[in-house]
Amino acid sequence: MQVPFWDERIETASRGDLEALQLERLKKVVDSAFKTPFYKKRLAKAGMSSSDDIKSLEDLKKIPFTTKDDLRKSFPKGLLACDMDEVNRIHSSSGTTGIPTVIYFSGEDVDTWTDLVARCVVCTGASKKDVFQNMMTYGLFTGGLGLHYGAEKAGMTVIPVSSGNTLRQVQIMQDFQTSVVHATPSYMLHIRTVLDENDISLKQLNLQKAFIGAEPHSENVRKKIEELYNIDAYNSYGLSEMNGPGLAFECVHKAGMHFWEDGYIVEIVDPETDENLEDGEPGEVIVTNLIRHATPLMRYRTRDLASILPGQCECGRTHRRLSRIKGRTDDMLIINGVNVFPSQIEEVIMKIPEVGTNYQICLDKQGALDRLTVQVEIYSKMFTGSAGELENLRHRIVEKLKGTITIKPLVKLHEPGFLPVYEGKAKRVIDERPKDEQ
Amino acid sequence: MQVPFWDERIETASRGDLEALQLERLKKVVDSAFKTPFYKKRLAKAGMSSSDDIKSLEDLKKIPFTTKDDLRKSFPKGLLACDMDEVNRIHSSSGTTGIPTVIYFSGEDVDTWTDLVARCVVCTGASKKDVFQNMMTYGLFTGGLGLHYGAEKAGMTVIPVSSGNTLRQVQIMQDFQTSVVHATPSYMLHIRTVLDENDISLKQLNLQKAFIGAEPHSENVRKKIEELYNIDAYNSYGLSEMNGPGLAFECVHKAGMHFWEDGYIVEIVDPETDENLEDGEPGEVIVTNLIRHATPLMRYRTRDLASILPGQCECGRTHRRLSRIKGRTDDMLIINGVNVFPSQIEEVIMKIPEVGTNYQICLDKQGALDRLTVQVEIYSKMFTGSAGELENLRHRIVEKLKGTITIKPLVKLHEPGFLPVYEGKAKRVIDERPKDEQ
Repeated sequence: MQVPFWDERIETASRGDLEALQLERLKKVVDSAFKTPFYKKRLAKAGMSSSDDIKSLEDLKKIPFTTKDDLRKSFPKGLLACDMDEVNRIHSSSGTTGIPTVIYFSGEDVDTWTDLVARCVVCTGASKKDVFQNMMTYGLFTGGLGLHYGAEKAGMTVIPVSSGNTLRQVQIMQDFQTSVVHATPSYMLHIRTVLDENDISLKQLNLQKAFIGAEPHSENVRKKIEELYNIDAYNSYGLSEMNGPGLAFECVHKAGMHFWEDGYIVEIVDPETDENLEDGEPGEVIVTNLIRHATPLMRYRTRDLASILPGQCECGRTHRRLSRIKGRTDDMLIINGVNVFPSQIEEVIMKIPEVGTNYQICLDKQGALDRLTVQVEIYSKMFTGSAGELENLRHRIVEKLKGTITIKPLVKLHEPGFLPVYEGKAKRVIDERPKDEQ
Repeated sequence: MQVPFWDERIETASRGDLEALQLERLKKVVDSAFKTPFYKKRLAKAGMSSSDDIKSLEDLKKIPFTTKDDLRKSFPKGLLACDMDEVNRIHSSSGTTGIPTVIYFSGEDVDTWTDLVARCVVCTGASKKDVFQNMMTYGLFTGGLGLHYGAEKAGMTVIPVSSGNTLRQVQIMQDFQTSVVHATPSYMLHIRTVLDENDISLKQLNLQKAFIGAEPHSENVRKKIEELYNIDAYNSYGLSEMNGPGLAFECVHKAGMHFWEDGYIVEIVDPETDENLEDGEPGEVIVTNLIRHATPLMRYRTRDLASILPGQCECGRTHRRLSRIKGRTDDMLIINGVNVFPSQIEEVIMKIPEVGTNYQICLDKQGALDRLTVQVEIYSKMFTGSAGELENLRHRIVEKLKGTITIKPLVKLHEPGFLPVYEGKAKRVIDERPKDEQ
């Protein structure tokens, strides 16, 4: 399958050309970094005095990692590399709780970001023929405005609905025959139950594609969404520190997410030893933004776990691909001494056809021991209602989970609609164990 | 006071040049209108067969009015003048209740809209030196994205907060030393009480300007906002049918809102006889959009009541000015046979210094008679707490209202924070009279 390119020359550039461009842009970003109080100090400490210290891409390793904590400690202007006059956009995680972080964008920074998002949209085959309903929150969260700008630039018909009000979303999908949506995977699953509840058939919709992102999800959740709607669902990866969406996106082949190597340098490191790993080896994703100069960020520790997929994609794009995010360095659960990633649990239960569209992982203490309870909504159309049937399903889920995570969980089944729904990022893990005993 | 122009040539164009441009653009809009099912029929019925029927601006009167009801009946595509391929944005009032309306924009339509909003922003003296916190809802509502695009184009530092979460808004105002905000007047008043409640002084802020719009408000509300914050507040007028913001805006002289005559033809008509009125005479605002081709709208009945101010503005802009919106043709209340506009009540109470930042107008029946109750929050800092003081204020409000609206209302005083707060458009009138008796 071949789809048009957004910018064929750059998307199919040779490795040599890409690396030459990366080096040129890295040097410019280092120049910008030296203008910030944070990097001026940090780079000096690492023995660097200017971008002249970067003579090859190998020299990237001279630059120390930057962490979320560095961002927080630099609030509000420690990572600002230009006059405020030149800043055209601010995205901040500021709030009344927690220490805020901020990313500044110049007008050019917004433009280059937008261009990469347009590239993402186009590589899924989406075009100006599509009606695009953006269900992600518009505002300081970069997911909403980021995709809005990119889809607009790609010429799609953008309906900026923002998040929430599912009945209205569904009405708009019908009224305008929306062909592409952007939502979190959990919200996509939720909408499907709302369609059922309101007797709206897929024939009344014109849905063909979903861009899903903003929360980690398993391959089986993607498959579930694709089957429930009979559409293609494309995985999107980004994080607000790296602009937001536009970092990496699946093309029509859905075989990993192309990360745009003219915009970002992605490294994978062993989160314990900080050693760089080879393509194919899983580790922590480290990203250097090559196209943002108001807030340069280099070798940023995303805490996301993934690998770079070896080999070329059939689509012809030479930019390498990132695997699905397997989890985060900090979301691993230790349950009675056993390491468990929530994604492992999701992977298992979402493969079971009788399981519905929502689940939750709960942890608490029973005496001295941790107790894992997996709450699962059933897909009610597959049941006649007999208790034996349900007990059989429950038993199967317990056994399958035990086979993967080695722990035997408690499994509770619920009617559709029982578990809480999140319009933004879903909260899948409720850990009620006392903090000091974990 | 002189501030830079956004587009000096067009903003200071002679009347003759403006009218020549209007005629040229009107003909093009008529061409677009003939491509829509709605206007094809409507214009034919009016004896028109092409834009050749428009030979002078006087011929505008050949075109029949278009109403909100026409828009509703044309949903979804009766007013679409191009292929969906060319549509780049949809704004819709669609919902689960009420009949939706929709406005389509081509990419060029969005660009010309954005350019007019940038012109609005710049005529208040705002520039790339300003940090702009946009507190209007982002999404299908045009107020949020409309100002966002215009402020961005004007080079301001845009913080796209969207509406809600007042404590967070206030925190961001402090963190980034916001100099310009965009909000409804009622929300501006509300934020001031939140500052007081949290002991945040104006010195901790850097606020200099507010763009206020999206709900009708009186001159005294503007003055109250200006005094409470020690800032300049600029009135913005627009409606989603006419793109949203960008239709008319006050310049630094705050002497009426310049409506951009290269983008819109504004007429004032007697709402009863439909006769065109002279400048200075109040009537219903009728607007023809000259710059949107995906959904052309001509001689649209806004139901807003205002007048065109005679004379030239000191700022040098030749585009005429609209008075403050006095009310809507459909918001007049008939109370025991007397015509009362909510704006009259607001005008009276907001001039009284002891009155706080929120009020509500309630109507119900007492036996056969209508009963008008005006609920008013007090400005608590001006009171020692004695009952006499409050009774004295209450009495003064009753008398002042009676002097203006001729009816003697019941007035109830409340502590700040008693009345409901609206983050979007305030609901000022609660009419609980049985519908068939009004």
